[in-house]
Amino acid sequence: MKKLVNSAESVVADALAGLAAAHPSLRVDPVNRIVLRAAAPRPGKVGLVSGGGSGHEPLHTGFVGYGMLDAACPGEIFTSPVPDQMLAASAGVNGGAGVLYVVKNYTGDVLNFQMAAELAEEEGIEVATVLVNDDVAVSDSLYTAGRRGTGATVLVEKIAGALAETGAPLAEVALVAEEVNARSRSFGIALTACVTPAAGRPTFDLGPDEIELGVGIHGEPGRARAAVGTARELVRVAMDALHDDLPLGGDVLVLVNGMGGTPLIELYVVYAEVAAYLREKGATVARRLVGNYITSLDMQGFSVTVCRLNDRLTELWDAPVETPALRWGR
Amino acid sequence: MKKLVNSAESVVADALAGLAAAHPSLRVDPVNRIVLRAAAPRPGKVGLVSGGGSGHEPLHTGFVGYGMLDAACPGEIFTSPVPDQMLAASAGVNGGAGVLYVVKNYTGDVLNFQMAAELAEEEGIEVATVLVNDDVAVSDSLYTAGRRGTGATVLVEKIAGALAETGAPLAEVALVAEEVNARSRSFGIALTACVTPAAGRPTFDLGPDEIELGVGIHGEPGRARAAVGTARELVRVAMDALHDDLPLGGDVLVLVNGMGGTPLIELYVVYAEVAAYLREKGATVARRLVGNYITSLDMQGFSVTVCRLNDRLTELWDAPVETPALRWGR
Repeated sequence: MKKLVNSAESVVADALAGLAAAHPSLRVDPVNRIVLRAAAPRPGKVGLVSGGGSGHEPLHTGFVGYGMLDAACPGEIFTSPVPDQMLAASAGVNGGAGVLYVVKNYTGDVLNFQMAAELAEEEGIEVATVLVNDDVAVSDSLYTAGRRGTGATVLVEKIAGALAETGAPLAEVALVAEEVNARSRSFGIALTACVTPAAGRPTFDLGPDEIELGVGIHGEPGRARAAVGTARELVRVAMDALHDDLPLGGDVLVLVNGMGGTPLIELYVVYAEVAAYLREKGATVARRLVGNYITSLDMQGFSVTVCRLNDRLTELWDAPVETPALRWGR
Repeated sequence: MKKLVNSAESVVADALAGLAAAHPSLRVDPVNRIVLRAAAPRPGKVGLVSGGGSGHEPLHTGFVGYGMLDAACPGEIFTSPVPDQMLAASAGVNGGAGVLYVVKNYTGDVLNFQMAAELAEEEGIEVATVLVNDDVAVSDSLYTAGRRGTGATVLVEKIAGALAETGAPLAEVALVAEEVNARSRSFGIALTACVTPAAGRPTFDLGPDEIELGVGIHGEPGRARAAVGTARELVRVAMDALHDDLPLGGDVLVLVNGMGGTPLIELYVVYAEVAAYLREKGATVARRLVGNYITSLDMQGFSVTVCRLNDRLTELWDAPVETPALRWGR
């Protein structure tokens, strides 16, 4: 197996050691497997906690920091973290104003965060949960009842994180997180499967000219197999799927996301097509991100997320953020 | 071929269109194929120009902006840009204080930048050139007389860019660029070959358990083929090569760079090993970057660059930067 790892068993622990060494702004608890802001908790501030299987980096550990998450709980590769991790994270970030869980809609994550919320409430920590389910490709899937949570997670964490910094109460932070999710839609296309360190082989089979339309972030099936097309054709498939679900118009925030193995030059080719499509529909791209934000190990392909903005969401998007993977002007 | 492109011929132009649409801070000249700061030239400021073959993104186009480059000239994939591009870029960024060319040491780039310098001087633009040749793997190679220029290019562009913002004269900016290069060493290891859009197949053959030690950024051969090892073993090979060439100690700046197709989680595993190695040698990692900064399309693997810092270089590293791919605090 060709992986930069010491062993399949140690990859998450070893990566957390690297994260701790690289980012003094973070505190990594290797026993509980949680990544916190070094300065957490901040009294009076709602704590934002997210988590999920590893292999989607920089999500979520790379989004811990000022203006975004207070803590992240990484599970094993493509495997939900456990309630004890989430509970330890909740205790570590609770500044008395409660904790918001940002949960991608996968069955394991949902159940474990529910259990953690119950345990936290027993310890006197108020918890609210936002379920992210932005992926229009399929309803119900291999790991999900209902739609999967994908790219909108990055947007929810950024925007809710910005509001939490202002000292807003838990109910309001939860509400804006839900608003971002409700206004966002995503669709992904895989050119190749990914290889997990444990399996050492592709998680699914794709022919040499075959792609998966609507692929999930673990390589789970989407809507259909198809022959590879031009960037323009693939973007049209993705954008039509978004537009069918939530008509695109007005000011939008766009995330063109690489799945981990896609060259950046190709993501910019994709972005040009996405921008042209949106122009055609009369939508204005007010803000955008192009890069690897929610990945699937070494999978090649992209996902596109569009969020219909309003003035308040734009302002929160623009607010300062300082995390390993996303940072701009304080 | 599985690529997110419209055609092999249009990939650079299409990506530039995406870059232009995504980053209002940039001005893209599609005819001359140059990427400039929207506000260039700035009177009295030395202009920094770099360029080289495409396929290494974010290098160089993603480093155009405040505190770094004034312009970048992208060639076709893995192909040097031409002197006319470089001349147009020089004219576009010359604020009367001259222009510094940051040139990676590959024969085509060197010749073309030399010719551009002559043309620019004829037009009354003062030009200085820094040659980046930090890769210790091989002297002379497929595309190079002397050592290849790799990861140190990012450091040179950042640090010389910071000095240029202060209004320092051309000779001083050139000097600090040379200092960074002289204090930096790099070594890369490929797990897989990359696929160019034009060829549609891997640029070289690697067996299923075989890796290339000392690989170049176009997949050109390094020191040896070897069997894949653990991250710890591979990092030791790379770091020993650096240490043999320039003993590691004192404060260092480290770049752990992904080659485009490497999952971020693996780069953090690598970083943990690099940090442990440096600790062992008594060096202090004062600053670091972990991510995709100088890539080789979809190649899997990593390179590590170490720069021995001094106080002035650290201060310039810390100075504000605002580019698509590198940004921190103004």
